Amino acid sequence: MRTNTPIYQRVADDLRAEIADGTRPPGSQLPTEAELQEKYGATRYTVRQGLAALVNEGLIVSRRPLGYFVREIHPMIYRPQQEFRRKQPDLDLFAQLLADEGNGRQPSQDIEVAIVQPNATTRDRLKLNESELLAARRRTRYIDGEPYNINDSYVRLSFVQDSEFMSPVDVARGTNQVLADLGKPLVRALDEIYVRMPKPEEVTRLKLGPGTPVAEHIVTTYTFDDEPVQVTINIVPGDRHVIVFERTREWPPTEQGASE
Amino acid sequence: MRTNTPIYQRVADDLRAEIADGTRPPGSQLPTEAELQEKYGATRYTVRQGLAALVNEGLIVSRRPLGYFVREIHPMIYRPQQEFRRKQPDLDLFAQLLADEGNGRQPSQDIEVAIVQPNATTRDRLKLNESELLAARRRTRYIDGEPYNINDSYVRLSFVQDSEFMSPVDVARGTNQVLADLGKPLVRALDEIYVRMPKPEEVTRLKLGPGTPVAEHIVTTYTFDDEPVQVTINIVPGDRHVIVFERTREWPPTEQGASE
Repeated sequence: MRTNTPIYQRVADDLRAEIADGTRPPGSQLPTEAELQEKYGATRYTVRQGLAALVNEGLIVSRRPLGYFVREIHPMIYRPQQEFRRKQPDLDLFAQLLADEGNGRQPSQDIEVAIVQPNATTRDRLKLNESELLAARRRTRYIDGEPYNINDSYVRLSFVQDSEFMSPVDVARGTNQVLADLGKPLVRALDEIYVRMPKPEEVTRLKLGPGTPVAEHIVTTYTFDDEPVQVTINIVPGDRHVIVFERTREWPPTEQGASE
Repeated sequence: MRTNTPIYQRVADDLRAEIADGTRPPGSQLPTEAELQEKYGATRYTVRQGLAALVNEGLIVSRRPLGYFVREIHPMIYRPQQEFRRKQPDLDLFAQLLADEGNGRQPSQDIEVAIVQPNATTRDRLKLNESELLAARRRTRYIDGEPYNINDSYVRLSFVQDSEFMSPVDVARGTNQVLADLGKPLVRALDEIYVRMPKPEEVTRLKLGPGTPVAEHIVTTYTFDDEPVQVTINIVPGDRHVIVFERTREWPPTEQGASE
C-alpha cells in the first residue's frame, strides 16, 4: 500500500499522525523543509505540497521566515443561550474544560448602524413585504484587539426608527430590552447553524487563515404571538469558538423521544 | 484597483458574484474553460486556478467530463434537541424554510459495536480512571444510500456490558431507554459544536468533496446527580445539514440577560 502513496502525501500523513497523537503538540515547530527533503529524499516542491495540504486542513500554520508550526486553537465559549438563560448551576464540565478560556482577555466591539434592503435570508424569516426596509445593527467583536466574530441584527425599520436601536453605541440595557420597551418582547428563538467556508469579505473582516471554516449562526426571535421581530446573523470562525448549548428534560418524559 | 487583480482572481470574483446574486443558480453549468479563456484572454492554467479557488470555497463542483456546476446544497435538519424535546407547536419558519427537506428520502444506518480505550475527549468528559474501558456504539447514517453523518456513542463498559447497548442492531426503544432501564436516566445534556476541516478518514467515510467543512458535535449526557454517563461524537458535514435549536424564555425574565 505504502509504496503507492505519493511522497507529498506521505509527508502530510506522517506529520498529521504525529499531530493527532500528541507527538507534535500545539505551538511546536515542525521540521524545516530542508530536513523533510532529506528525510524523504524529496524535492523542495514535493515537501511544500505536503505542508500545503496540512495548511489547508487547518492543522499547521506557516510563519515566515520562522517556518511551520502546529496550529494552536484556544476556542472561546460561544453560548447562544446566554441571552435567554435562566440561571442554573453550571455543569462541572464547564469548569473543567471550558470555563477559564476568557480569563484576562479584553473584549471590545465596533458598532455600525445602517438602513438596508432585505435579502432572501431576512425577507423569508421576517415575512417582509417587497417595500419594507430594515434597520441593521452590525457589530464586529474583538478580543485583545483581534477580530473574533461578526454579529449583524436586522429589524423592520418602522419598529425602531426613532429608538436607541439606531444609535451606533453600546446600549447598556441591551437591544432586546429596547425592543421589549417598544412592545416587542422576544420570548422565543430559532437557531440555525450552517457550516461552510468563509466568503472573501469574511476572510478580510475576520483575518481568517487558510483551512478555517465558519459557522453562520442565524437567530430568528419571536414574540408571544410567534411574530418574527429580529434576525441576527453571526459569523463564527471555527478556530476561535466552541458553540455550546445546554439541555434538560423531565423524567420520566412526558413524551417518549427516540434516541437513534 | 481592478487592474492590479490577478486574472485568476478576477475569474473567481466574477463567478462568485454571479453565484451570490442568483445569476448563476444552484445546479447550473458554468462556462467552459475555453469560453473563460476567450473572455479573459487567459491561459487554460489561469482559468483553472480561478475555478480551483471556487472549488475549495465549496461553491462549485467539477463533474468530469461535463464541466463545472454551481453546487447544490439541500441541507437536512439536524436537531440535537429532538432527543429531549417536549412536543410544542413548531414555529412557522420550519414549515416555510425547512420542514419538507426530508420528504421521500430513505434513511438507513450501519451500526457497529466495539470495546475501546478512552481518548482525551471521552476521558475528560466521563471522568474515567486510567484503567476503565468504554463500550462504543458507532453509527453511520445514510440517506438514499449516501452517507450523511457519523454518530459514535461511548459509555463505561462496566455499565452496559450485558445489555442491548452491545448489540449491533437498532434498538427499538432507543439506547437512552436502555441506559434508563440500567438505572441511568439521562436528563441533562451539554452540546459542544466545533467547526473544522474534516480528517482524511472522515473524507473517506462520508465521501466529502473539496471545500466541505464539518461540525464536530460532542454531546455529554448526565443523570439527575450530574454524573456524566454518555459521550456522543457526531460528525456533521456542512453541505448536508443545518443544525437547529429552539429556545424559549419566560417574560418578564426572572433574571436579566444582556443582549450585546
